Amino acid sequence: MERYPLITFLSDYGRSDGYDSACEAVLAALSPQTRVLHVSHGVGLGEIRAGAAILARVAPLGPPAVHLAVVDPGVGTSRRPVVVHAERGDMLVGPDNGLLVPASAALGGAVTAWRLDPMRVRAQAGLPAHTLSHTFHGRDLFAPAAALLANGLPPVLLGDTIDPTTLVRLPDPRLERDQGEIRAEVVEIDRFGNVALCLGLEQLPAHPERLHVYVVDEPETSWTARVVTTFGDLQPGELGLLQDSWGHASLALNGASAAEVLGARLGGMVRLILP
Amino acid sequence: MERYPLITFLSDYGRSDGYDSACEAVLAALSPQTRVLHVSHGVGLGEIRAGAAILARVAPLGPPAVHLAVVDPGVGTSRRPVVVHAERGDMLVGPDNGLLVPASAALGGAVTAWRLDPMRVRAQAGLPAHTLSHTFHGRDLFAPAAALLANGLPPVLLGDTIDPTTLVRLPDPRLERDQGEIRAEVVEIDRFGNVALCLGLEQLPAHPERLHVYVVDEPETSWTARVVTTFGDLQPGELGLLQDSWGHASLALNGASAAEVLGARLGGMVRLILP
Amino acid sequence: MERYPLITFLSDYGRSDGYDSACEAVLAALSPQTRVLHVSHGVGLGEIRAGAAILARVAPLGPPAVHLAVVDPGVGTSRRPVVVHAERGDMLVGPDNGLLVPASAALGGAVTAWRLDPMRVRAQAGLPAHTLSHTFHGRDLFAPAAALLANGLPPVLLGDTIDPTTLVRLPDPRLERDQGEIRAEVVEIDRFGNVALCLGLEQLPAHPERLHVYVVDEPETSWTARVVTTFGDLQPGELGLLQDSWGHASLALNGASAAEVLGARLGGMVRLILP
Repeated sequence: MERYPLITFLSDYGRSDGYDSACEAVLAALSPQTRVLHVSHGVGLGEIRAGAAILARVAPLGPPAVHLAVVDPGVGTSRRPVVVHAERGDMLVGPDNGLLVPASAALGGAVTAWRLDPMRVRAQAGLPAHTLSHTFHGRDLFAPAAALLANGLPPVLLGDTIDPTTLVRLPDPRLERDQGEIRAEVVEIDRFGNVALCLGLEQLPAHPERLHVYVVDEPETSWTARVVTTFGDLQPGELGLLQDSWGHASLALNGASAAEVLGARLGGMVRLILP
Repeated sequence: MERYPLITFLSDYGRSDGYDSACEAVLAALSPQTRVLHVSHGVGLGEIRAGAAILARVAPLGPPAVHLAVVDPGVGTSRRPVVVHAERGDMLVGPDNGLLVPASAALGGAVTAWRLDPMRVRAQAGLPAHTLSHTFHGRDLFAPAAALLANGLPPVLLGDTIDPTTLVRLPDPRLERDQGEIRAEVVEIDRFGNVALCLGLEQLPAHPERLHVYVVDEPETSWTARVVTTFGDLQPGELGLLQDSWGHASLALNGASAAEVLGARLGGMVRLILP
Repeated sequence: MERYPLITFLSDYGRSDGYDSACEAVLAALSPQTRVLHVSHGVGLGEIRAGAAILARVAPLGPPAVHLAVVDPGVGTSRRPVVVHAERGDMLVGPDNGLLVPASAALGGAVTAWRLDPMRVRAQAGLPAHTLSHTFHGRDLFAPAAALLANGLPPVLLGDTIDPTTLVRLPDPRLERDQGEIRAEVVEIDRFGNVALCLGLEQLPAHPERLHVYVVDEPETSWTARVVTTFGDLQPGELGLLQDSWGHASLALNGASAAEVLGARLGGMVRLILP
């Protein structure tokens, strides 16, 4: 197998407690030549869907790489640890809980997959088998596997082949249309407080100038959003709906957090009433 | 042109949402050999002055490099995207909103500047022209330009030369002196809660041992600050004024946040009454 | 001396204000070939013990390296700046306040130590002596020393040998046993809200299925914790005690912060009542 010059790394470990750097130290020990690109360690705790979305956006922008991703609330249970080989040539390593599938799709789709065997991974890495923890497979299983794959080790030496169609998939976010109304799930709230919905502006019928917005958790209040191109088109304090840089229709306030002002939350629903 | 072995990167993107790593993935795809040094992604949202100050401090400490800097509240509007070539040899890439000028000055001053042409940048980078977003020029314009410059591409292939004296400059922070009194703008509040003012201790007349401090937003309360050399000179809970590591007179509390206790805020004014 | 391909870097600087990147820029200027691994910059302000614990965990997982560590509330006072050579071959650089000793022990113990002489460090680094600040020895002293050591410079050129047994050691965390009761200090609270205690599960007499838990700061409330293997063994909202990935008995709540719910704090005491 070819070597990979880059490992990307995403988790919900944060950057303060040493979980992320423990994994990076393992990578540095086993694959010292390989560069590490930290995708995010600020994924919400156990927020598999949010982590999957970030990885699916970032991975295709870089060169073919090994993608180490650990948002793993089921660590130590029967969920499978897996490697996925994507059509573009990338390898994705992490828990089989839906985290890897969107990135794999964005990289052309899963060609092959393997279920990692912790004993084989640790043996190949020269690590003692008995020190596999029940709670930190990032350090003990996934990072060693990612390093070995970056070194060009064939995945079949780390586990048995599995059918990629059996990989766990997250349900699609909810998107409902009635005449004159769209109800869409909030799929992301970013640092700027932008509220991204699971539809693109091009899916709106015609091109409305303005529409009414209800946050389903705050049904008493309605808002008017103007459809604009960028943040700078908005007056201070004005609510806008714009196509964000990942292709989502996104509610934004110029100079303030739309999420906070509207009371929107990740996974909640927003109603758009067309004029 | 020479290659640059290092790209530094500063933004207000945070490190959680994948904006910073999307840009770094673009850098890794277009300039895989170039090391990336993250200066800060925790600049306050749209806080151009704060971002400019951090970049101006950090850039001269490293080797000549390409400095990618994106604090860009005007993204997608008519503000110019620019490259600045500084006397020391560095290249600075970002929006023309004042962000790059202090670092450029700290690197010997701007020698030449160019207005980036998004179509030329994307063509040189082998990226499709039509996917330039209106809201994420870090990923779509500035990171590709920074990668190409690091590869040694002459800036003139990315845009037309402009007069560096036309670059947007931020107004100087406010500093007023009356007899026995100095009013100085707060130019930084750091993680430790230190309150840095836009003057150096050497600008104080004589060498006072103590002075009275008023925060203009909290005019009812006055404080006494002792002039000291380092944090450890202060008793727990004692307020001090010391020369910070960037040359600013800075209000500090031993073991607590001076900013919080005093109620100081970035951009606000502090009055120092000399004895 | 041999060169080191890796510098690890831990501090309480945060990642927003440019303190961490100022140091990294110094490393890049003085030792451009050396990779930098950020262990954590989110150590609590001045929390020497917490920083020492993280470094002691992460350092042994990576290859032999120079470990730059700066949690330094006594910066500019008489505390010694030191280098420690550990048995495994690693070099540790930082203040002599207890921060380096646990990592040094985890790397086989301190073989030799040196007291850094700021003037010699700055001369070897080609930096002007007079610009040593009183408040930022990370940038002005420790990072230059770490870069020079990574380049293979013998430590004796940077300072005089000192007796490693004179290095400052932190007191052990408190662990008290009575019949049927253990009182243990909280040694870590992580991003997930897990409350790690200064004992291992194997130190509990027998293998209890459940035990009662009191947080000494909140003596009115008692909790029942079930002894489990991993987070997924717990029902939502159920309190568990498990062996964490660093070998500590740790209180955990499935899907919530045990620290918050219990009111536990770093350095506080927890009572475990055995059945």
